[in-house]
Amino acid sequence: MSLHPFDPINPGEIQLGVKILQAAFPGVQLRHKKIDLQEPSKQEALLNADARSLVYAKELKDVQGPVDVDEMLGIEQLCLNHPAVQAEVAKMKLPAGMTVCTDTWIYGTDDPKETRRLFQCYMYMVAVDHPQNNHYSLPCRFSPVFDGSTHQLVRIDYLPCGNDFQTTETQPWRPVETIQYAHDLLQEPLRPDLKPYIVQQPQGPSFSLQGNAVSWQKWRFRVGFNNREGLVIHNLTYDGRNVFYRLSLSEMTVPYGDPRAPFHRKQAFDVGDVGFGITANQLSLGCDCLGHIKYFDGYRTDSKGNPVQLKNIICLHEQDNGLQFKHTNYRNGEATVVRNRQLAVQMICTVANYEYIFAFIFDQAANIELEVRATGILSTVPFDNEKPGAVVPWGTNVGPGVMAPYHQHMFSLRMDPAIDGFKNTIFYEDSVPLPEDANNPYGIGYTTEQTVIKNSGTANTSVDRHRVFKIRNDNIINPITYKPVAYKLHTVPSQMMLASPRSFGQKRAAFATKPIWVTKYQDGELFAGGEFTNQSKESQGVEKWIQRNDRTENEDVVLWHTFGLTHNPRIEDFPVMPMEKVSVMLRPDGFFTKNPALDVPPATQSANQSTQHPDACCTDRTKVKL
Amino acid sequence: MSLHPFDPINPGEIQLGVKILQAAFPGVQLRHKKIDLQEPSKQEALLNADARSLVYAKELKDVQGPVDVDEMLGIEQLCLNHPAVQAEVAKMKLPAGMTVCTDTWIYGTDDPKETRRLFQCYMYMVAVDHPQNNHYSLPCRFSPVFDGSTHQLVRIDYLPCGNDFQTTETQPWRPVETIQYAHDLLQEPLRPDLKPYIVQQPQGPSFSLQGNAVSWQKWRFRVGFNNREGLVIHNLTYDGRNVFYRLSLSEMTVPYGDPRAPFHRKQAFDVGDVGFGITANQLSLGCDCLGHIKYFDGYRTDSKGNPVQLKNIICLHEQDNGLQFKHTNYRNGEATVVRNRQLAVQMICTVANYEYIFAFIFDQAANIELEVRATGILSTVPFDNEKPGAVVPWGTNVGPGVMAPYHQHMFSLRMDPAIDGFKNTIFYEDSVPLPEDANNPYGIGYTTEQTVIKNSGTANTSVDRHRVFKIRNDNIINPITYKPVAYKLHTVPSQMMLASPRSFGQKRAAFATKPIWVTKYQDGELFAGGEFTNQSKESQGVEKWIQRNDRTENEDVVLWHTFGLTHNPRIEDFPVMPMEKVSVMLRPDGFFTKNPALDVPPATQSANQSTQHPDACCTDRTKVKL
Repeated sequence: MSLHPFDPINPGEIQLGVKILQAAFPGVQLRHKKIDLQEPSKQEALLNADARSLVYAKELKDVQGPVDVDEMLGIEQLCLNHPAVQAEVAKMKLPAGMTVCTDTWIYGTDDPKETRRLFQCYMYMVAVDHPQNNHYSLPCRFSPVFDGSTHQLVRIDYLPCGNDFQTTETQPWRPVETIQYAHDLLQEPLRPDLKPYIVQQPQGPSFSLQGNAVSWQKWRFRVGFNNREGLVIHNLTYDGRNVFYRLSLSEMTVPYGDPRAPFHRKQAFDVGDVGFGITANQLSLGCDCLGHIKYFDGYRTDSKGNPVQLKNIICLHEQDNGLQFKHTNYRNGEATVVRNRQLAVQMICTVANYEYIFAFIFDQAANIELEVRATGILSTVPFDNEKPGAVVPWGTNVGPGVMAPYHQHMFSLRMDPAIDGFKNTIFYEDSVPLPEDANNPYGIGYTTEQTVIKNSGTANTSVDRHRVFKIRNDNIINPITYKPVAYKLHTVPSQMMLASPRSFGQKRAAFATKPIWVTKYQDGELFAGGEFTNQSKESQGVEKWIQRNDRTENEDVVLWHTFGLTHNPRIEDFPVMPMEKVSVMLRPDGFFTKNPALDVPPATQSANQSTQHPDACCTDRTKVKL
Repeated sequence: MSLHPFDPINPGEIQLGVKILQAAFPGVQLRHKKIDLQEPSKQEALLNADARSLVYAKELKDVQGPVDVDEMLGIEQLCLNHPAVQAEVAKMKLPAGMTVCTDTWIYGTDDPKETRRLFQCYMYMVAVDHPQNNHYSLPCRFSPVFDGSTHQLVRIDYLPCGNDFQTTETQPWRPVETIQYAHDLLQEPLRPDLKPYIVQQPQGPSFSLQGNAVSWQKWRFRVGFNNREGLVIHNLTYDGRNVFYRLSLSEMTVPYGDPRAPFHRKQAFDVGDVGFGITANQLSLGCDCLGHIKYFDGYRTDSKGNPVQLKNIICLHEQDNGLQFKHTNYRNGEATVVRNRQLAVQMICTVANYEYIFAFIFDQAANIELEVRATGILSTVPFDNEKPGAVVPWGTNVGPGVMAPYHQHMFSLRMDPAIDGFKNTIFYEDSVPLPEDANNPYGIGYTTEQTVIKNSGTANTSVDRHRVFKIRNDNIINPITYKPVAYKLHTVPSQMMLASPRSFGQKRAAFATKPIWVTKYQDGELFAGGEFTNQSKESQGVEKWIQRNDRTENEDVVLWHTFGLTHNPRIEDFPVMPMEKVSVMLRPDGFFTKNPALDVPPATQSANQSTQHPDACCTDRTKVKL
């Protein structure tokens, strides 16, 4: 099978890239941060795989590339082995069996003149007796900063530990209990009464594959993967009709609300600073999904240019989501019942403490869902446990000596539509009362108002007006509705970024200030926060691209939706967080001439083989005397 | 097993009730609309089942009771057999094999002086050759109105059929295609490629039952049922701690947006006008749920006072909802993975054309969800199919000659909390930026603001402030957070009712004008729109009860959440609607001292028995030359 332009990079291509780069820069010792495919422009039908030469090289100034795996592990070792750090650790006088570890954080931004490549090492105490001891339960009170290029210790920050800005030098640790999450380390027994729940697909799955091209029911698409975004959906069609050219989670930022240094710099861009491709979990059969599972691998590059296989980092499987539709004719009791079978393409990314579970989910009624689950472990800071009753206004006490600050997760879903073709128009539709006049004599009438986004720009959501965003193709009119074929976006109306417009926090993440952005398609504009987010001083993303003021009516357009979770931790989110789910839906709206799932076979006991719980033998209900 | 005060009514009790009533009103020929249990007041520990006498009787004036099954079927026959109706039908000159049927609608309200009990019969054409022919595809252009007490024809309304207010007398029908939903009647073949998906629970379910008392994981509750609300959850506890005293869907209203007579009166109160108990579907094994299913029966009363069994109208089963939490220690790849097993208690109600699927869903992390799925068939009106391009501003053309008007579904979830006891306080919490002063030097700090609802009243949702409503018990302080134990409500911020404040539509449904209502508990206050909604002129519900201005801080309080769907039909919602889902979540927030699901056993392949899709044998990836 030959390669498709949207296929993820493979080891041979990585090795080829390294060879070409070495030839182009003779005598230079190269450090490889990323070798990945550049997707073809929409105009090109095929990748020219024969060039085998460097076609473009640019020297970048004033930007910091993302952290890579070797770099992160290197800084971790540098920190733990540094004499100044070890001297601080010594001051804590840890008991036998305890050591320290570090989560190497991107540094963030607070100084417009800073040009060094910096890392902030948050330190934790951890027992050595088990690989899943929860160090996030035991944050240290100091945090070294390293220069990632020179490998010099820049300074050691002391962390505020009370409910004010005060810091103190490192003191001997007063031991507290570790709040553990791993099953091996729990004090309480596991629940004994959870019975197995097994999904069986005796005839196999309903999907089929050719390389990364997926066929399922009337959907066809390609599973893409790159180091930065991880999972990407390409060339999505339904029943032979174009729907979306590309769907991806283009960026996210996690700004923290604790105003105190150095926490004010905690603002992760998990896509641009690190990458959901390189942090994607190796998935395990029977843990992450039920039923019949197809796994996809990916590749990343190590710093020397060697390809590293990322095994089973995307999974694909069917799931049952309850009823899709039902109607009973009450006159005769005759019912039509169809269940909602879905196809989920999923990745799980571990960005140090947190986990994100991303799934694009397709159903038989031509609906598309991006489901995001936030789980994992809260990023924690030390908090004095010697003052009972003490709380902070920007966080939650989650255990003895440990506090979890408020933060937001702001996601950007990039939708490159192709609703029956590439010329599309984005508009929003509000539901509004009719005027109370002769045409609305009883005052109950309501209608919809459409606003076309004629030029690149932004828009707000509106719950009060039930605002719905739609993507239509003005060139194709539905023969029944007499309106252009369209898909609609069910937004997730969310609180936008709380950081001040004057803060670096907001300047670096303009995409997180508006829920809707519309741009005219341009090659290379894939990331809402811009290409380089690490230690950025302002973003170079959607907010720049809309300034071209391109015409976006009946054009090749891109729709970006920013949504999020304002996450003020519950203590129940610790030591590991029951998932919080957000879901963005795309649904056909006048794209078909009727329910496209009508031809899904009915739900029947012969196929589904459910089991009925036996009724209790007897009650004394009938004992009521007459 | 003896009866519990929360057990649903049984046949013996119905028969006893009839006997007592007959004795109390000698010589009167009684028509029985409803005989159902009155739940005990909170103060009473036991129902006094020994009274066997009428303790209270009230003559009701100026109200109309709900429609009952016998009445609806009676009006249907009355209509179809009436000579004036048959004369109209004759004018349509239907071809052989076609007849008419009617959906008997509650009349609604538009005249403050109207005191008759009225029914509006919407008429449809239907082929006689199959019990699932879709009559909603072929609406007639006339609509008789009957007096339900005298059985007289009041008048025949002619329906507007164009995009204006004009009506015409009944004309011969110009045949158009019926858009069918039933599998038997589809012209296209069914999809051949959907493979079986079977849920097996070889060791049986994880729940156990004693009568209507359910035990599952750490949850305990009683499944209640009454004719009006259908499913009710009573006495909900988690790990022995009180959480909610009662949860129910207390009312809903469906106002339509087509401003033209007689459609302006289309405003169903599906709980108060009809009842989700009496419209609940008889569920079928293998269709409505997968896995191991327990069914519950209920009883209603026919008009003569006979008990009628409602078989399998509530089901209870476990489901898998993907991952509940995961964390991977990136240093060593060690992962903790727990799946999200849920217990769903579900009913499906058919209110003429529409179906609602209601499920209370409990999980292992002490979360409670009310999931509502709207499906079934749109309520349709005739529309001229002879003018290509014609559309209306208040509806969607969904097929030849048929239009589906815009409408809203406004639900009221009644939550009677018992967070560690009955004295609770409701407040809302907003996330707001810290002032930009010396305590927020970098401009990124944010905090929360709490507003206690100290007296009965209303509140709004706020997306921009990430407003969360919480129920706390001020008498019990969490030992780690130092804050009162609480549950939080994830509201569904929704557009409120669009009908004018001057309209009957809004006057009858004040509960649908505000998303949050807080009242002090009082016996008998169960229904947000008041006890009698049928042809009501104004509601007698939450909006009256808040006027008592009761203290609601640290009191026995009730929280009511109004949420909804503004449903401007898609053509894809016809002829049967892919479900649209809304979900309200209740989550512990400082109720526990850590994640309450930590002790759920890990997800393992040995229990889950997933299957891995075989990898394709070979690709030419390695052919890239170096």
